Amino acid sequence: MTIATPTTRNGVDTEQMYATLDLLKAQPELGQAQFRVTNRWLGGAHNRSTIKGFFAAGGEDTTRDATFEVDAGEPAILLGTDTGPNPAEHLLHALAACLTTSIVYIAAARKVELTSVESTLTGDMDLRGALGVDDEPRNGFGRIGVSFRVTGDAPEAKLREVVERARQRSAVYDMVTNGVPVALEVTTS
Amino acid sequence: MTIATPTTRNGVDTEQMYATLDLLKAQPELGQAQFRVTNRWLGGAHNRSTIKGFFAAGGEDTTRDATFEVDAGEPAILLGTDTGPNPAEHLLHALAACLTTSIVYIAAARKVELTSVESTLTGDMDLRGALGVDDEPRNGFGRIGVSFRVTGDAPEAKLREVVERARQRSAVYDMVTNGVPVALEVTTS
Repeated sequence: MTIATPTTRNGVDTEQMYATLDLLKAQPELGQAQFRVTNRWLGGAHNRSTIKGFFAAGGEDTTRDATFEVDAGEPAILLGTDTGPNPAEHLLHALAACLTTSIVYIAAARKVELTSVESTLTGDMDLRGALGVDDEPRNGFGRIGVSFRVTGDAPEAKLREVVERARQRSAVYDMVTNGVPVALEVTTS
Repeated sequence: MTIATPTTRNGVDTEQMYATLDLLKAQPELGQAQFRVTNRWLGGAHNRSTIKGFFAAGGEDTTRDATFEVDAGEPAILLGTDTGPNPAEHLLHALAACLTTSIVYIAAARKVELTSVESTLTGDMDLRGALGVDDEPRNGFGRIGVSFRVTGDAPEAKLREVVERARQRSAVYDMVTNGVPVALEVTTS
């Protein structure tokens, strides 16, 4: 009799995960990646990003078939027509998504079967900053609140450890809390 | 004969814009806003944010009819099935969208008619950080490159001033370059 060993936990192929980690330990240079977005203005507060190609594991990706399109907009009070979430809401989504995936992957690595991961994020902003009415308030959120509800087959302490480790490893959490150098160039023809 | 004064420039109602700015100057407390995202894990690297309600101008918004849903995922090499852009790509989109809308609004205020705004953003990351293989590389992008192409009915110098002002006022640019305090809480039942 053969007992199959399930290698998928939380929807993550853990054998592939361990193989990926081993490969990056053996060949650290394969860790270099570049992600890209192109964006086009469509009128007023409406613009759209197109997302497909990226560089990872020593070469340009050839596996992603889909071309993703993500629209942004502003609500009426911010002079738009709700053509999509506004940019600050997209940033909250990026943070929620990254923390969630980090929780799911870390739980898989630690043999925790999750049953649900839900989060609510809030960002408080004084609009006078971004609208240029006053120089005192910053442009962005002064504070972001993240509230997670995580359930699974592990004791509370272990679930909390998983979330804490996700916070320590999340790419977007790192960027949103610590900032990233941004180089901006412009052409006008 | 009546000559209509067009109040819309670049798709932005400039009369509404000036009225909004005047209101915020007169009643600074109306600048307080809160944006929100709720996110739910759907399996593996797939999660979805739902975005609708927000607080602005002294009250809870009642104008936004749409409920936006934005999906995130990971490509195969990062153990996902391409259910959406990955979280770091969503962060690049948030930055592109915010800079673009800032450019469009500032151009409208400065009487510049834009004909196109396009951007390409790149983010370079050592995946060993977020995957926990090595403590040395940071988790997020070490650097973001933003390349804008902006055309319109103004001289190059004025177009460049508009982009520079947008950089100084963009909410997401501020957050991504300077960071934001994030408070994270967890419940496990």
